[in-house]
Amino acid sequence: MVSIKDVAKEAGVGLGTVSRVLNNKGAVKESTRLKVERAIEALQYRPNEVARSFKMQQTQSIALIVPTIWHPFFSKFAYHVEWELSELGYKMILCNSQNEAEKEINYISMLEKNKIDGLIAITYSHDIDQYISSHLPIVSIDRHFTEDVVYVTSDNESGGKQAATELMNRGSSQLAYMGSISDIENESMKRRKGFEQHVKAQGASYSILELKEPVQDIEQEVRRFIVDQPEIDGIFAMNDKWAKIIIHVLKSLGRSVPSEVQVIGYDGITASKEDELTISTIQQPIEQMAKEAVKAVLNIILKEEVEASIVLPVSFYNGTTTR
Amino acid sequence: MVSIKDVAKEAGVGLGTVSRVLNNKGAVKESTRLKVERAIEALQYRPNEVARSFKMQQTQSIALIVPTIWHPFFSKFAYHVEWELSELGYKMILCNSQNEAEKEINYISMLEKNKIDGLIAITYSHDIDQYISSHLPIVSIDRHFTEDVVYVTSDNESGGKQAATELMNRGSSQLAYMGSISDIENESMKRRKGFEQHVKAQGASYSILELKEPVQDIEQEVRRFIVDQPEIDGIFAMNDKWAKIIIHVLKSLGRSVPSEVQVIGYDGITASKEDELTISTIQQPIEQMAKEAVKAVLNIILKEEVEASIVLPVSFYNGTTTR
Repeated sequence: MVSIKDVAKEAGVGLGTVSRVLNNKGAVKESTRLKVERAIEALQYRPNEVARSFKMQQTQSIALIVPTIWHPFFSKFAYHVEWELSELGYKMILCNSQNEAEKEINYISMLEKNKIDGLIAITYSHDIDQYISSHLPIVSIDRHFTEDVVYVTSDNESGGKQAATELMNRGSSQLAYMGSISDIENESMKRRKGFEQHVKAQGASYSILELKEPVQDIEQEVRRFIVDQPEIDGIFAMNDKWAKIIIHVLKSLGRSVPSEVQVIGYDGITASKEDELTISTIQQPIEQMAKEAVKAVLNIILKEEVEASIVLPVSFYNGTTTR
Repeated sequence: MVSIKDVAKEAGVGLGTVSRVLNNKGAVKESTRLKVERAIEALQYRPNEVARSFKMQQTQSIALIVPTIWHPFFSKFAYHVEWELSELGYKMILCNSQNEAEKEINYISMLEKNKIDGLIAITYSHDIDQYISSHLPIVSIDRHFTEDVVYVTSDNESGGKQAATELMNRGSSQLAYMGSISDIENESMKRRKGFEQHVKAQGASYSILELKEPVQDIEQEVRRFIVDQPEIDGIFAMNDKWAKIIIHVLKSLGRSVPSEVQVIGYDGITASKEDELTISTIQQPIEQMAKEAVKAVLNIILKEEVEASIVLPVSFYNGTTTR
């Protein structure tokens, strides 16, 4: 049987485009539309009429796209999303995108064809923006799209500020921020911003190590930065992964944590419910983020009013790497 | 609208029972059938005819039940299951059961109503056995059911034997096994068995700490056991969680690991792809287990022949807790 995938391949376009042509909704360039129509003709593709007659019927399922479920942040988030959806009578379809735009686009196409009712997406891929449309029930986590897509995030800016405040309150005076930066606009950039603004306002001394993604060897870059600036005594890391690498480098250089150098990360997520946090960090309210994402996507489906962005408060966890 | 849940509630039976009555398949006691039929009458329940006409059509979706996705074992397994299914054109619906039988039964009922094509289940709940039926496309991980359900597991017995061999080859002579035991028959019991048989065959000295689940305070029980038997110099733990607690207790008692006491766990799973293993352990082949589970459930759906049990080889990882 000829599938929509075959049509897309034959026309040399994405699945989303074929879907938009078939459903006659969303913007498609006229030349592209022709290409798709010719491919449909050539392959004698017949859309599944039974499935199409179901268009208005809800599937009671929401898809969640994460880069990989094999990661504490995403698995904890997915845990709470599924739990919340299940309480409300919805099933959760899980997609590990591995940042492959094609897999993500496939789900947007399912959404356009009403094979799922809504989509919650944590996505970092480059090519997806053009397929996203604000008329679809999509909620994004941390990321802004060109289109006006609702997003849920933790208060990254306040998190940066809190980290600066806690480091200074605990006696650090030579501060540093370390992290990477993506060319896709996202909320985590605000961590540095909040940190920097607060440190500046306090007139304290600080330096920044910000590397363009993908970073080849974080450890080596961190080591060079710390060796060059031995006066640094308080570090805010963009996330806990960076914090752990920084702590490892500090220890390997014979620097004691936290007595000589304090380190604060961002995320505060354990590998399972039973594990306990160790390092000091700014904790994201994952459970609440999951609940708000579910609430938002269902409200869009029900045509209720939804805020354009939902920003949730973070909190400082005083672990083993601050005094 | 009256739902199947309302009927179940009214009749005082489970969803699976109502489903079996509606679909007229599977064994239902005559008195129970009457109760269900009366409830249907009383509530004027009408099954969704459109959905029923779809019965023979495949949904191209497989559900995966895990106790919680917020756990490295289950998230890594789910990662590979989803990836494999996606390659084959299937979607994965994820269910965190939290060991609640009701949630699990709901999925079995979906399977009976052809709302999903198949089910891969990691389940430890007590009440589910009666709902499982070998005529359904169900694949279980680690657990045996009364009914002849296909299961996939790692070679636990060989794992126990390997642990004993590695401890002895590396100089331990006073061995111990530590773990818990559930009253639900499962494959992990064979870890102890393989260990014990091999140690016995070698004529070595050993002792066993096996606690009935749920264990209130593993740390305290482990401490007492080790204090009572200070001669123990090689420990096989039922899993890495136990191994970590044992290592913690040993260190708190001033015992050096691995120079005085060697410890080997079971599982060998990191919290994400980027993390590295630290402790010595018997590694389960999670990726292969996921692939075999997917293959088996699809083969059942396609009425192909499937082995009743699929047992996959494990391997020893020589980490920081063996010499």
